[in-house]
Amino acid sequence: MTQADRHSMDEMVAFAARLAEAARGETLTRFGGAGEVVNKAKSGFDPVTEADRAAEAVMRRLIEQSYPEHGIVGEEYPDRPSNSSCCWSLDPIDGTRSFICGLPTWTTLIALLDGGSPVLGLIDAPQLQELYVGHGSSALLMKQGETTSLRASGCSRLSLARLSTTDPFLFDAAEAEAFGRVRMAARTARYGHDAFAYARLAAGTIDLVVEAALKPHDYNALIPVVRASGGMIGNWQGEDDFSTGKIIAAATPELLEETVALLRG
Amino acid sequence: MTQADRHSMDEMVAFAARLAEAARGETLTRFGGAGEVVNKAKSGFDPVTEADRAAEAVMRRLIEQSYPEHGIVGEEYPDRPSNSSCCWSLDPIDGTRSFICGLPTWTTLIALLDGGSPVLGLIDAPQLQELYVGHGSSALLMKQGETTSLRASGCSRLSLARLSTTDPFLFDAAEAEAFGRVRMAARTARYGHDAFAYARLAAGTIDLVVEAALKPHDYNALIPVVRASGGMIGNWQGEDDFSTGKIIAAATPELLEETVALLRG
Repeated sequence: MTQADRHSMDEMVAFAARLAEAARGETLTRFGGAGEVVNKAKSGFDPVTEADRAAEAVMRRLIEQSYPEHGIVGEEYPDRPSNSSCCWSLDPIDGTRSFICGLPTWTTLIALLDGGSPVLGLIDAPQLQELYVGHGSSALLMKQGETTSLRASGCSRLSLARLSTTDPFLFDAAEAEAFGRVRMAARTARYGHDAFAYARLAAGTIDLVVEAALKPHDYNALIPVVRASGGMIGNWQGEDDFSTGKIIAAATPELLEETVALLRG
Repeated sequence: MTQADRHSMDEMVAFAARLAEAARGETLTRFGGAGEVVNKAKSGFDPVTEADRAAEAVMRRLIEQSYPEHGIVGEEYPDRPSNSSCCWSLDPIDGTRSFICGLPTWTTLIALLDGGSPVLGLIDAPQLQELYVGHGSSALLMKQGETTSLRASGCSRLSLARLSTTDPFLFDAAEAEAFGRVRMAARTARYGHDAFAYARLAAGTIDLVVEAALKPHDYNALIPVVRASGGMIGNWQGEDDFSTGKIIAAATPELLEETVALLRG
């Protein structure tokens, strides 16, 4: 680590938690309950986009104030170039469809990249009041004042694995066929949770996530959290190049390997 | 209402909330987090079954003590015959796979039937601290000491509808084809939430739920909650016979009708 080293990791974790807190102020107030939100959406007002933009904007302002030399890549605004090796990756609302549907497992994703590699990841679930933080070999869940360590489950066989993917209809035909083989071999499958599924993999209650078409702001924050919990994360070949957007997260190397082989067919 | 009338509905609502509270004591303590639960499961201990059984047992004991003449039908134990027109329908954990996967939207379902028809429904989401209660035209959400009214969204067109189903692979081939037509026509689709999706339909954030293979203990509690919120619930023909297990819940009669027509093909 180069620039990020000059600031201690403790400082960066505390700052990233401040970013999550600030984003929460913009997202939670626009989430939820009210049928009115839907009606407004129909007449052209889009509360999700507004929450997305406001949350990213408030995080950007904090970064620009505190670390003006750091770069920023986000979902909603143009990239801010970096004058250091450090860059923040921001996804103000991951799980937009959950947000729209009043379902609680949408998240805010924040990653600190150093020299292009994610060294710190936060998965914040505001509606659940759960913040997952990972860097190095430290993976923690903070919930209502309590902090607990995260550890991936240790599941090493697909036949015992709890599999998750967000939406099985997001795969193209070949991907769907490959995913189908994994689904049929797994113990159980669950849908609909976006980044939150990776948080629960780190927490040891999901064993395997298989997805495609993820963007850097979707996966950057997941990598440090999953790895710090002892889990594996790679592409569909089990390798480190995430740019294909095809991601596997697995509780163990054995489970990753078995899944890669089955996806290959 | 006959027997249920002798007890006021207020009394029945308060008692059903006590049942939910008692069940929560058995389910929440066995939910989640720990990887240990999984490891134990592999060696033959099944925390879900234990939570299911313990939660149903504690609800049965309370009913037997307070209303010994009432019948009980549940998921885990034999039916208790009724010496009145009243019968309780209990599903201690709906969304077993969410429970297993440490995901928060599993629920406890409690319905009071009078002469075979559900007149009171509770959908309790312990991990979210949300209790949805419906009877007559009263539909309420109780969350952390606050009570709010529930109202279905008013969405009357499938092209605007937020659709939910728990698992698209639970349909047989003909059902999957019919569901596919609805999915393609809807504004967005979301998966994975079992009974909680019907609770959010009552709350106005989901507009349409289409499912198959539901059992009476799965749907009894949903009917009063959805109807009291102004929503519609019927079978795939839009009718009141739920025994096929094929269920549509919709925010409006127009949306129900459009969905029925599309499922018919």
